[in-house]
Amino acid sequence: MSDTDITVRKTEKLYEGKAKILYATNRPDLLIQHFKDDATAFNGQKKGVIAHKGALNNAISSGIFERMEKEGIHTHFVARMGERDMLVRKVAIIPIEVVVRNIVAGSLAKRLGKPTGMNLSTPVLEFYYKDDKLGDPMINDYHIRAFGLATDEEMAHISGEALRINQWLINFFDSVGVQLVDYKLEFGRTEEGTVLLADEISPDGCRLWDKQSGEIMDKDRFRQDLGRITEAYEEMARRVSGAR
Amino acid sequence: MSDTDITVRKTEKLYEGKAKILYATNRPDLLIQHFKDDATAFNGQKKGVIAHKGALNNAISSGIFERMEKEGIHTHFVARMGERDMLVRKVAIIPIEVVVRNIVAGSLAKRLGKPTGMNLSTPVLEFYYKDDKLGDPMINDYHIRAFGLATDEEMAHISGEALRINQWLINFFDSVGVQLVDYKLEFGRTEEGTVLLADEISPDGCRLWDKQSGEIMDKDRFRQDLGRITEAYEEMARRVSGAR
Repeated sequence: MSDTDITVRKTEKLYEGKAKILYATNRPDLLIQHFKDDATAFNGQKKGVIAHKGALNNAISSGIFERMEKEGIHTHFVARMGERDMLVRKVAIIPIEVVVRNIVAGSLAKRLGKPTGMNLSTPVLEFYYKDDKLGDPMINDYHIRAFGLATDEEMAHISGEALRINQWLINFFDSVGVQLVDYKLEFGRTEEGTVLLADEISPDGCRLWDKQSGEIMDKDRFRQDLGRITEAYEEMARRVSGAR
Repeated sequence: MSDTDITVRKTEKLYEGKAKILYATNRPDLLIQHFKDDATAFNGQKKGVIAHKGALNNAISSGIFERMEKEGIHTHFVARMGERDMLVRKVAIIPIEVVVRNIVAGSLAKRLGKPTGMNLSTPVLEFYYKDDKLGDPMINDYHIRAFGLATDEEMAHISGEALRINQWLINFFDSVGVQLVDYKLEFGRTEEGTVLLADEISPDGCRLWDKQSGEIMDKDRFRQDLGRITEAYEEMARRVSGAR
């Protein structure tokens, strides 16, 4: 979308999540996604603040979504609005977290007893039912069908898009010296039933390793108390904004 | 197979599991599967003995496999050999437990917060990586592909067979007054690469509820200390052997 010459202003708060707030606007088809500095990990058991994270994630996510749109990957992104706000198309979030993995890390290493850093021979998609109270349990296509979380057509689209997005993101991050280990995607339906990539793409939901040094440049610095957390997010914002 | 006029005898013990022992035989293509009375639950944390279980599970499983073979469902079953032994084709077990669910119960109820007894609108297949040390973690087609646990062709065959087996088993158990809630299947490859249904189908790996009374007629009686465990297995053996 390119109608950025409209006047859009926040009206009421619709939803406050762990790292973002969603606001309605004077336009029924548009929302404002506000990025907070709050950070949580381990399903909310660890809480903290990462200084400037909101602004940095907005910059990183806006930069990536803008490039994706140019490549024909359809997202909810409309425009970056100031430091911490992103104007987005209104979608109903499909309650499925899509995790895309290229390299073994995190819960996959633990669950399947595989070494962190092992290259996967093909990308792995995992689906999780978005439900904090249940701890976001893993599901598959059969659960999604039986419980009506998405249609078979939507799931075919989402899986295909996730793999297409993955190929694009691997190349994009590679071009800025970063290995894309794994990350989470969320999709939403517009009122017309179009499925768009939604939420954000930032170091909060991605594992990003520096290609040269192997240094961790994502929220694992917070999870594992590695220090220099804001610095890592700043470095990622710098690289994304400087990308070709 | 119908070559039951051969003389087959146990040679060395190949593998001892929680509920069964596998023996080699004097025939390189045949094994003997011996059913024990030992019972375990909660990934081996609870241990006990269910009197006569070995003989009853052999009778139930043999009765079901024999009928399946007549319906064109290919299994490793060759013949029942005495009280506790089953002659089977030698297969390499594919390390994936296929769980088939028709009604919400057990871990699905807990994981997804759905009520026990809720009918699923379509059957749910779940795949678990057979690894006791890892606690048999849930996996999906992508993990299976990335870690080479089975080929895409094998998985398409296994999923198709599981759904076909499910339809047959629902009808079979219904005909003996039993609701088939959920169960576990294992498949194996012959040396020629044919994929066959293997392991067993018994109250150890199925949830079976009496259609009239709702009474639990499976290993949940052991898991939940409900008493009259052998009696439930005996009743299931009686119904299976008396089926049309």
